[in-house]
Amino acid sequence: MTAGRLRRSIATVCVSGTLDDKIAAAAAAGFDGIELFENDLVVAPWSPAEVRARCADLGLGIELYQPLRDFEAVPAPLLAANLARAEHKFDVMAELGADTVLVCSSVSPAAIDDDGLAAEQLALLADRAQARGMRIAYEALAWGRHVSTWDHSWRIVRQADHPALGLCLDSFHVLSREAGTDDIARITPGKIFFLQLADAPYLRMDVLQWSRHHRLFPGQGTFDLTGFVAGVLAAGYTGPLSLEVFNDVFRQADPRRTAIDAMRSLISLEDGLPAQPAIELRRLPAAPPLSVHAFSEFTVDGRSGPVLQDALRGLGFAHTGQHRSKPVELWEQGACRVVLNSAVTRPQTPGTAALSTFALTSADPRRSRARAEALLAPALPRTRGSREADLAAVAAPDGTSVFFSADDNDWRADFLATGEQPAGDTGLLGTDHLGLAQPFDHFDEAGLFYHSVLGLTQLTTEEYAAPFGLMRSRAFSTPQRTVRLALTVALLRRGEWAPAVVDPQHVAFATADIFATAAAVDRLGGPAMQVPDNYYADLVARFALPGDLVERLRRHGILYDRDQHGGELFHLYTPVYGGRVFFEILQRRGGYDGFGEANAPVRMAAHRHLRLSAS
Amino acid sequence: MTAGRLRRSIATVCVSGTLDDKIAAAAAAGFDGIELFENDLVVAPWSPAEVRARCADLGLGIELYQPLRDFEAVPAPLLAANLARAEHKFDVMAELGADTVLVCSSVSPAAIDDDGLAAEQLALLADRAQARGMRIAYEALAWGRHVSTWDHSWRIVRQADHPALGLCLDSFHVLSREAGTDDIARITPGKIFFLQLADAPYLRMDVLQWSRHHRLFPGQGTFDLTGFVAGVLAAGYTGPLSLEVFNDVFRQADPRRTAIDAMRSLISLEDGLPAQPAIELRRLPAAPPLSVHAFSEFTVDGRSGPVLQDALRGLGFAHTGQHRSKPVELWEQGACRVVLNSAVTRPQTPGTAALSTFALTSADPRRSRARAEALLAPALPRTRGSREADLAAVAAPDGTSVFFSADDNDWRADFLATGEQPAGDTGLLGTDHLGLAQPFDHFDEAGLFYHSVLGLTQLTTEEYAAPFGLMRSRAFSTPQRTVRLALTVALLRRGEWAPAVVDPQHVAFATADIFATAAAVDRLGGPAMQVPDNYYADLVARFALPGDLVERLRRHGILYDRDQHGGELFHLYTPVYGGRVFFEILQRRGGYDGFGEANAPVRMAAHRHLRLSAS
Repeated sequence: MTAGRLRRSIATVCVSGTLDDKIAAAAAAGFDGIELFENDLVVAPWSPAEVRARCADLGLGIELYQPLRDFEAVPAPLLAANLARAEHKFDVMAELGADTVLVCSSVSPAAIDDDGLAAEQLALLADRAQARGMRIAYEALAWGRHVSTWDHSWRIVRQADHPALGLCLDSFHVLSREAGTDDIARITPGKIFFLQLADAPYLRMDVLQWSRHHRLFPGQGTFDLTGFVAGVLAAGYTGPLSLEVFNDVFRQADPRRTAIDAMRSLISLEDGLPAQPAIELRRLPAAPPLSVHAFSEFTVDGRSGPVLQDALRGLGFAHTGQHRSKPVELWEQGACRVVLNSAVTRPQTPGTAALSTFALTSADPRRSRARAEALLAPALPRTRGSREADLAAVAAPDGTSVFFSADDNDWRADFLATGEQPAGDTGLLGTDHLGLAQPFDHFDEAGLFYHSVLGLTQLTTEEYAAPFGLMRSRAFSTPQRTVRLALTVALLRRGEWAPAVVDPQHVAFATADIFATAAAVDRLGGPAMQVPDNYYADLVARFALPGDLVERLRRHGILYDRDQHGGELFHLYTPVYGGRVFFEILQRRGGYDGFGEANAPVRMAAHRHLRLSAS
Repeated sequence: MTAGRLRRSIATVCVSGTLDDKIAAAAAAGFDGIELFENDLVVAPWSPAEVRARCADLGLGIELYQPLRDFEAVPAPLLAANLARAEHKFDVMAELGADTVLVCSSVSPAAIDDDGLAAEQLALLADRAQARGMRIAYEALAWGRHVSTWDHSWRIVRQADHPALGLCLDSFHVLSREAGTDDIARITPGKIFFLQLADAPYLRMDVLQWSRHHRLFPGQGTFDLTGFVAGVLAAGYTGPLSLEVFNDVFRQADPRRTAIDAMRSLISLEDGLPAQPAIELRRLPAAPPLSVHAFSEFTVDGRSGPVLQDALRGLGFAHTGQHRSKPVELWEQGACRVVLNSAVTRPQTPGTAALSTFALTSADPRRSRARAEALLAPALPRTRGSREADLAAVAAPDGTSVFFSADDNDWRADFLATGEQPAGDTGLLGTDHLGLAQPFDHFDEAGLFYHSVLGLTQLTTEEYAAPFGLMRSRAFSTPQRTVRLALTVALLRRGEWAPAVVDPQHVAFATADIFATAAAVDRLGGPAMQVPDNYYADLVARFALPGDLVERLRRHGILYDRDQHGGELFHLYTPVYGGRVFFEILQRRGGYDGFGEANAPVRMAAHRHLRLSAS
């Protein structure tokens, strides 16, 4: 038997739009097939035969038609009606050229708790299907009235013992029940007819609502999909891996973007599967280790450039390098590098600044780029950046360019030394992390990107109340914490009343002595964000800190956090520049591994007050 | 004893912004006081004394400071730390001039399940408070570790038996538990120190998440707040009615709007309370009965006007009246009246149309307006409308003008008869309902507005999946269904990818014979929206309708729905005009009381395809 490849499929319900939007998006992202949701067909102007032809033109198979609901284990008169309904759907499937239909376990009050009856009626349905060359995939909904676990659905399928009746396994329904999955590998070969995949965050809520609103693509949640799929493949399954993700955000976002995010999740999932005898798994180039933030680059203009220069000088940076051919400056303090780029490449609102690029040192930049491209990250042409050096670069979901550098010589050669020295040493050691507010529709996409493309580990997700609405933050890092990214997003897309800084970006520099650094910055007349006295009064009550320590914190506007293991964070912020960007200086003590989210509302309110007093 | 008035208070957590935004919004909406949330103070640049002065300037008392958490029933060493923490908060309260602090029942794993210990430690705390002229309001959180019901917190307060220790009752925590509330009226007079009010929809989810994200203002959810407050007042409570509403939407919306919505909820709540011996309740002018939609008015321009004229003519309308002095036309068919107004009053995008006004026949228009004004609806000056007649008018939350007319003579006199006759009778009987998409931040506000201001009854709320994202609809009507409004909103605020018609508005006309009307419209060459064949194929499968009936539906593009009682809806739609508005014609049979939400996705997809084919 020749090893085949796993087909990749996506349910039309995963993405937004009408059927034409959905099919086009699935094809463009490289899927092999779709699960066609009945609702998408019903509202479409194309006949089923036209849908079939359109899909065939785009290289898409119709892997599954769904669903038939509330079919089995009903009193006889209802059975006749249900069979009649099924025949209508078989007619549609015949026109579509689809041979597998999903039957979800019944949620109807009319259903009888009788496995024998369910098996008998499903076998009747399978007879009808078989006569048309079709087959029935029976799935236990986690909230099914009598059948809600995969092993129960499997007992019924075994009892029915019909060649045209098999199982549909859906990772959400299986894994949300926290039931055992070890036995899945022992399902009779050939009896898993279909495999639906969805990830999800762990949520304490009604399982139906959880399922209908909060599913995610594999790798975006907390389910062990690798183990689950490995079990299904061990049972001899060779059908498509098909995504079935109900997600409120994806349902209204650009379907072309969502489909690429979806495909990335399947590529990454397949890469992580154990080797299979009957399937040729496609493997990605391994993610090379990343060692350090090489530099962060801001686009500026004639108004925002000087403002950022002043700020950097106040933090102890000097303008150490000038690009050989472009209006691009290198600023340094210790191992911290910031590039200010006023060579306009994309239109921007006058007076604004934006973090456009960051560069990471990679053990193998070309492989980093190859992996990114294999994961559908858009490779960037060299001309998009400012540098002569041919750095490997890709675009992140928020449009930020990510450069991979082998070492500093890669990009330093672009700059001529100016000989300028910092006015003073502020003791900054390097970049601790970048803080990047993400576009509302692309937060989970961004997480999967940084995890799968860069090979970063996801740290915790935090949700907190902030002055202008609820926020979510999710951080990623290398195992040694040499590269850290903190992504944030508002829980609701911001509307007209958004007086805070929208989509802020910041670079956080590390110091080994926050008080020495703060004093040095003070001596340079450097920037500092005012912290309210009320904050320090509360700090005393919350942490019982010594009075003199609180006084030192207050003097320098330093914020404080402590984790449950006694790790401590000391950090301070600058004002916002160019409407969007700011800097942070921080010192971690005792293994503190967070990002000071508890203090984010203080920063947001202070930034708001600075804007109010400036206007 | 002189009867006093109920003070009205709002927790700062109810609205968005920094403390200055929140205080200003509360004062502008007419509140007497605030509950000050610690987090709002901590991030504020004002000292507590400055906050006190600012509130005093605006006529706001600080009714409650909150919260102290995880205080009671702890081992001795923790008690000392907790008392020290409390003293810090008492310092803050002294500066604020606040005399009541909220202590929530502990959620800490350190808390001991020992009512005696809880009472003893709360009494200790009350001693400290009393020494400073303060008092402790103890509240059972619905998810408290050991104390989670109001009657349990009351047992502890009785056991402590301390004059400076009383109860805080929060309607959410009490009513979400579905526990009995009859005994509340028997709480010892004077021992309810504080009353917090929140409504909520019934949701099957973790109670903490429900509480933190989905609370609503009174009248916006399903809780019996009237009964609850009546019970509390019966127990002799004379303190403020204080709103404490955690709501994801309100937390990020314009705080000035939210505060007015909040105040409206309290005014309406008080109006519905049974008379009280010790309190002088403020009563609203009763809502006069509303009998009929008198007319619907669209703003149009030189491009959208002719398009709407064509559409109306095709539906059998004639241009029957011309305004005496302005470019405003009256169009009629049967008892359906549409006004097209091209007298520009507000700037609008060229080529667009919008439903700007609707008029309802009221048994007492002046009283309708007086009630609306008492409920803080902005009264509209006559000059805003197009008419000479001095109709009472107010603005709805989405900006639509609502006119109250005593009878048709009120406004008909503005128009000179043109003598034009309809080209044919299409049998339209009158306006069945208006469909109004609401601004995302103001959906619950709009519901409360139509319920409290117009006195309409809320019908069911529906949520459904549509091609471009999830939708929620909520309908309001008079008891006799003479006036119906169907409000809709997207569950997530629309972003850049919003290819559907954003914020559609429509007028639905009733007919007694949908097939005769459709045929008459066809004869006039009137507008019809194409309905996919797939829809009819599905209809056969779903409802087992006779083939000839389905064929008649298909021929005219008529959609069909059936409710669980056998009531039926037959309805058809026009295309979208002016980018936003469309018409519907419907026939209800057998008591059908819905709005055909099941067919909304068909309409949305069809409107999308019309736009695609037009562009």
